[in-house]
Amino acid sequence: MKSFAVIGGDSRQARLCGLLVQEGHQVSAFALERCSLPPQVRVCASVREACSGADCVILPMPLSREQEMLNAPLAREALPVSDVFAGIEAGTLVCGGAIDAQRQAAAGQQGIRLIDYFEREELAVLNAVPTAEGAVQIAMQELPITISQSRCLIIGNGRIGKALHTRLRGLNAEVSVAARKQQDLAWIAASGGHPVRLADLENELGSFDLIVNTAPAPVLGKSQLRRVRKDALIIDLASRPGGVDFDYARELGLRVNWALSLPGKVAPLTSARIVRDTIANIMEEEAR
Amino acid sequence: MKSFAVIGGDSRQARLCGLLVQEGHQVSAFALERCSLPPQVRVCASVREACSGADCVILPMPLSREQEMLNAPLAREALPVSDVFAGIEAGTLVCGGAIDAQRQAAAGQQGIRLIDYFEREELAVLNAVPTAEGAVQIAMQELPITISQSRCLIIGNGRIGKALHTRLRGLNAEVSVAARKQQDLAWIAASGGHPVRLADLENELGSFDLIVNTAPAPVLGKSQLRRVRKDALIIDLASRPGGVDFDYARELGLRVNWALSLPGKVAPLTSARIVRDTIANIMEEEAR
Amino acid sequence: MKSFAVIGGDSRQARLCGLLVQEGHQVSAFALERCSLPPQVRVCASVREACSGADCVILPMPLSREQEMLNAPLAREALPVSDVFAGIEAGTLVCGGAIDAQRQAAAGQQGIRLIDYFEREELAVLNAVPTAEGAVQIAMQELPITISQSRCLIIGNGRIGKALHTRLRGLNAEVSVAARKQQDLAWIAASGGHPVRLADLENELGSFDLIVNTAPAPVLGKSQLRRVRKDALIIDLASRPGGVDFDYARELGLRVNWALSLPGKVAPLTSARIVRDTIANIMEEEAR
Amino acid sequence: MKSFAVIGGDSRQARLCGLLVQEGHQVSAFALERCSLPPQVRVCASVREACSGADCVILPMPLSREQEMLNAPLAREALPVSDVFAGIEAGTLVCGGAIDAQRQAAAGQQGIRLIDYFEREELAVLNAVPTAEGAVQIAMQELPITISQSRCLIIGNGRIGKALHTRLRGLNAEVSVAARKQQDLAWIAASGGHPVRLADLENELGSFDLIVNTAPAPVLGKSQLRRVRKDALIIDLASRPGGVDFDYARELGLRVNWALSLPGKVAPLTSARIVRDTIANIMEEEAR
Repeated sequence: MKSFAVIGGDSRQARLCGLLVQEGHQVSAFALERCSLPPQVRVCASVREACSGADCVILPMPLSREQEMLNAPLAREALPVSDVFAGIEAGTLVCGGAIDAQRQAAAGQQGIRLIDYFEREELAVLNAVPTAEGAVQIAMQELPITISQSRCLIIGNGRIGKALHTRLRGLNAEVSVAARKQQDLAWIAASGGHPVRLADLENELGSFDLIVNTAPAPVLGKSQLRRVRKDALIIDLASRPGGVDFDYARELGLRVNWALSLPGKVAPLTSARIVRDTIANIMEEEAR
Repeated sequence: MKSFAVIGGDSRQARLCGLLVQEGHQVSAFALERCSLPPQVRVCASVREACSGADCVILPMPLSREQEMLNAPLAREALPVSDVFAGIEAGTLVCGGAIDAQRQAAAGQQGIRLIDYFEREELAVLNAVPTAEGAVQIAMQELPITISQSRCLIIGNGRIGKALHTRLRGLNAEVSVAARKQQDLAWIAASGGHPVRLADLENELGSFDLIVNTAPAPVLGKSQLRRVRKDALIIDLASRPGGVDFDYARELGLRVNWALSLPGKVAPLTSARIVRDTIANIMEEEAR
Repeated sequence: MKSFAVIGGDSRQARLCGLLVQEGHQVSAFALERCSLPPQVRVCASVREACSGADCVILPMPLSREQEMLNAPLAREALPVSDVFAGIEAGTLVCGGAIDAQRQAAAGQQGIRLIDYFEREELAVLNAVPTAEGAVQIAMQELPITISQSRCLIIGNGRIGKALHTRLRGLNAEVSVAARKQQDLAWIAASGGHPVRLADLENELGSFDLIVNTAPAPVLGKSQLRRVRKDALIIDLASRPGGVDFDYARELGLRVNWALSLPGKVAPLTSARIVRDTIANIMEEEAR
Repeated sequence: MKSFAVIGGDSRQARLCGLLVQEGHQVSAFALERCSLPPQVRVCASVREACSGADCVILPMPLSREQEMLNAPLAREALPVSDVFAGIEAGTLVCGGAIDAQRQAAAGQQGIRLIDYFEREELAVLNAVPTAEGAVQIAMQELPITISQSRCLIIGNGRIGKALHTRLRGLNAEVSVAARKQQDLAWIAASGGHPVRLADLENELGSFDLIVNTAPAPVLGKSQLRRVRKDALIIDLASRPGGVDFDYARELGLRVNWALSLPGKVAPLTSARIVRDTIANIMEEEAR
């Protein structure tokens, strides 16, 4: 049994409080006033009160959205990140997500052991599953055909590309995957998919019902988009600035769904569990 | 190249017109005035005009919704089924879906070869896929967790149960299937699922995140529902009167989604293709 | 805890004795003298001694190989089936496999409740798995290529055809399945396979690395075999007289493996478990 | 169309000659005298004759087995590697497998562009498939139970571990995978398997029917082997010195199959294709 302080964040942090108390941990919360928390959670009046004696302080992902303010949409009032840090005792283990260098440095100066769980490899791996499921869900909602027997193209063979490949195959789609490296093309073939060299992408694009981009690169530009069928659906999973020339796609009348941050949207409870498991790993490693 | 008359029905019939002209067939339409059809379709002013010389007349599924009127929500005006039959020459091949005995008899008296495509085994098999995908889509939309690693129970091991089993497994869920017959339980185990005897259902119900009923029987009554977890989702695919005690489920605060006629809703184009393929088979057999 | 008499049969019956004592049952054996049995098994000197008081007598599958003699290759001496029946008290439940009408009648006259477990649907379903695995094993042993990415044809969409389809797909083969009925062709497509009409078989045969026949019919005659590639492997799972013109295949230099009774050969322990489970179901039903 | 010289090696090199002529290339061979080659292959009397004008010279994998001699079991007489190098014109592209540093240096001194295809990532990826299939084949041959519903443990989550995981799951086994890194454990769970921490391996070992080691480390020592069930099968895919304490396993009466170099043994044609594809990639890159 450990004691946690959960500070700020959205409903995912609220769900995280619920998971922790379910497992028998002590949980204090602050800056989550505008949502209902389980009765076992001790709602505190200050960062200092919440964090006092905590084995681990859990901050949201991302840590801040606007400049220097804590990402805390459910808090009664806005709170600078520096005020949060000021309320935490030196030496405390603090976990937060997507922390910029400036905030990282500030924490170091105050003697806080600040760890960015968004940079943990296992979180990225586990998040690939809700992301892939989210893409499947969008395709099911928007296409007038079944995934079964549809022709799907995945661009990119990273974690999300692989997770999506397995799932589309599991739903009996015909799956092609485009990649640049020979070893990725080999892996795609070995996994039962049809490998497409990225260099040949343009020539192949006309035959797909569903195109999902997972590559963080401008892979679907004007010349590519001109080849896409009018009744196809494009889902772009690439973070800003995205992999699609959105303006030109609109001009051509193509359907594009730019889907970001899917895990928290399509599976908030799984998403909270992933953060919990990652933090458990961090605590175990730090305790050694 | 054949000539078809498409009479009445909803957007699925409209999509069917599109598929038929794409394949090079001649298509006449009536009672579809309130939707836009491809320019190649000859829009007619009467059943007689549309059906004259047709190799096959395609009526909707179900044939009629209210008493004796044709199911034709996109028609300018309401039309009795008897008027439709009166406009078709004796000897013409007519396909319609879910036709009652009275209508069947009336057609016989007028010398019409009326065939119910809803009773064709291959249509039922093919419809199992969009139905199963529809259930997956609902589960993805309503559950806060991923299908991956969720504990799912399917009640019934018929066509839809089997199609859903494969797909949930393909998405890495832990799948249990409840059935009554030994041979079904054997098949479930042989397919990698956990078989549950229907007699033991009550004792097992408490461990599932998702419960999908495919059996046309009242399998989820009061004593069963009391065992279901509060955060579980129940999807009932059984046609009227359904397999769940809906009132009691509501009383218990359980989430139940009674999902009927999924193929036309979640995959209208696939659904139209299934009807087209089934009618092609009927025409081939009738031509022998 | 029940008491069983296990009479005759090969090593599968010996394994069955082992499974039954493992589960805590009392087991008497006769006509298994030439194999080693677990010490808990009571080895008897006569059918009468073994069967006295038994809840169930288990005879081999098939019951007899030569005319009227019990199938008992591990017995000290040959034994007519009639002598076996004579040693069993009237009213005793007796299970045996593949029993002919004459033997069935003889048992009835002696008041024996003789049930043929080989006719049980769940045994047939469960046996489809070791049969399908056996076919995969043969293909792996005989082909110089991997199953992965090989082009496989299964003829027939029954239990074995379906079990094999799933497994070859699970190994990333490209699977086609030939069948006659529209509903089977529909099921094949819905399962992610490429459906081939049996009538078109001849034209398609030239493109496969592996051809497995599961249909109890002469599907691979002269005109079909002429289309098969010289480096392809044909596995025939059809029982006598088989589905392949073996002489003509030899003339053409084609590799054909006629593989019968695979479950007992490739997975004798699983095979014994399947018999045990089937007999448990029979006993439960008879006890009602 | 290119011209190739194929020098030495076993039947895989012979098959490679066959594949290259099938694709329309010119092929010269030397040191393959004791096998039959397709008539289109030009059999040469010396390395020099075979390599003269070749776009690429293909040497075997491994390049040499005994000290400084070419690996050429099908050659009329033994041949030092230095003699081979001496017969190749400076500037020629030469591909060979598993080349030691000394040979690599010698080639460099003679101005030969010697590339080790065994170090290519895509070859390693593609070889994972026949290796995984080989392990499945051995398990099918040696276990008296079906893979279906068997409890399997894979040690290691690299290329071979992942390829085997997918295939065992595709055959409906219950799959556990042991790994050390959190990100691997996360990947295993996301792929539908049961993750086992390498540190907990000892406690879990007693529940498996099949244990396959893919890790290049002594993971199955005395204390681990004592936990393994007597009827389990261990397959060790780790290259010398292997991952199992073989002597102790023998003492305990455990069945261990140390299976090395599976691709060439279980799928020699696929294996030759993999070498051909890898060499094609090398030639394409070198041509840039």
